[in-house]
Amino acid sequence: MKNQKGLLIVISGPSAVGKGTICKELFKKNIENLELSISVTTRNPRHGEIDGVNYYFVDKNRFQEMIDNGELLEYALVYDNYYGTPKKYVIDKINEGKDVILEIDIQGAKQVKENYDDGIFVFIMPPSFKELKNRILKRGTEAQKDIDIRMKCAFDEIQHAKYYNYIVVNDDLDKAVENIYCIIKAERCKLSRYNLDLFEFKEEL
Amino acid sequence: MKNQKGLLIVISGPSAVGKGTICKELFKKNIENLELSISVTTRNPRHGEIDGVNYYFVDKNRFQEMIDNGELLEYALVYDNYYGTPKKYVIDKINEGKDVILEIDIQGAKQVKENYDDGIFVFIMPPSFKELKNRILKRGTEAQKDIDIRMKCAFDEIQHAKYYNYIVVNDDLDKAVENIYCIIKAERCKLSRYNLDLFEFKEEL
Repeated sequence: MKNQKGLLIVISGPSAVGKGTICKELFKKNIENLELSISVTTRNPRHGEIDGVNYYFVDKNRFQEMIDNGELLEYALVYDNYYGTPKKYVIDKINEGKDVILEIDIQGAKQVKENYDDGIFVFIMPPSFKELKNRILKRGTEAQKDIDIRMKCAFDEIQHAKYYNYIVVNDDLDKAVENIYCIIKAERCKLSRYNLDLFEFKEEL
Repeated sequence: MKNQKGLLIVISGPSAVGKGTICKELFKKNIENLELSISVTTRNPRHGEIDGVNYYFVDKNRFQEMIDNGELLEYALVYDNYYGTPKKYVIDKINEGKDVILEIDIQGAKQVKENYDDGIFVFIMPPSFKELKNRILKRGTEAQKDIDIRMKCAFDEIQHAKYYNYIVVNDDLDKAVENIYCIIKAERCKLSRYNLDLFEFKEEL
């Protein structure tokens, strides 16, 4: 009775909100049929990173080709290195009936929405701006000026929340992870996920 | 940041599908801010039943008055006794920010949808018709003819599934309860549940 197609679940939010940690915890739950998308990048593999597991490592020519051919759901240039989400990998998984999680920044999520409106977009919200600032401060050794820029940027990013389907406040990590788990479970119960072919019932009458 | 208004969650499905058992198990989880609606009825209280706890007990004149005044979200006549859902009770709870569960039959759910389209409608589906028949057989001592009528009726009821938001297959009780729990949690994270007043963030900048 279930449709075969999987879901595309986009987890995004301002930088330092904790989306990486949330996704890591989520995958510890070993949810059946759920996969994390693998990004493609032009940066060099770090020690221990495996091609096709942590990332797909490609050179800049190949990446440019992927952009030109529309092979990416989204991409970005970060400090001279490209990062992107290969469309084929994601669509293949979805067609296999797997649900795929993309953990990406706001700009990436915006691109995905343009390319795949059928996705489920989850915005991770900081409990407050003050708390987001604390998390940014904790992360690094940035100068006051850079912190101000990041905070201004985060404020702009939060404006995008209104384009998402769900908002999960990252106040308590366990609760945030549970909410995302529940969103996935609930989305799997949506009417549109079922092929209500009642003939299979009729035969049993 | 949260909206104050609660959710109306309608749990319905064909008779004998197990919606009563699911709701009983759901309430054992003591979900914060969740209440089961109390029905109004013209039948006499059974031993131990308390007015305003198990039911609101009223006489037929008062019930007729409630119908005439549009005081009911839905009602039905079952073997000479009326049962209904008092609108005021439900709306008051929702306005207090409580989420309210209605566990009702298909006809009742149809009436609620006409009166309160903003509800979340969950259809409990039997894993198969064969299994539903087993459950009906287990319940009572009905004659073969009555069982045939009930099965035909259940088949008609299942046609209504397409008007619901979610479908939960009652294959495994724990899984069905978890799915409904997740639907409630996920619905609470829906964008529409938030009042994205970013000024409260701006003040912190």
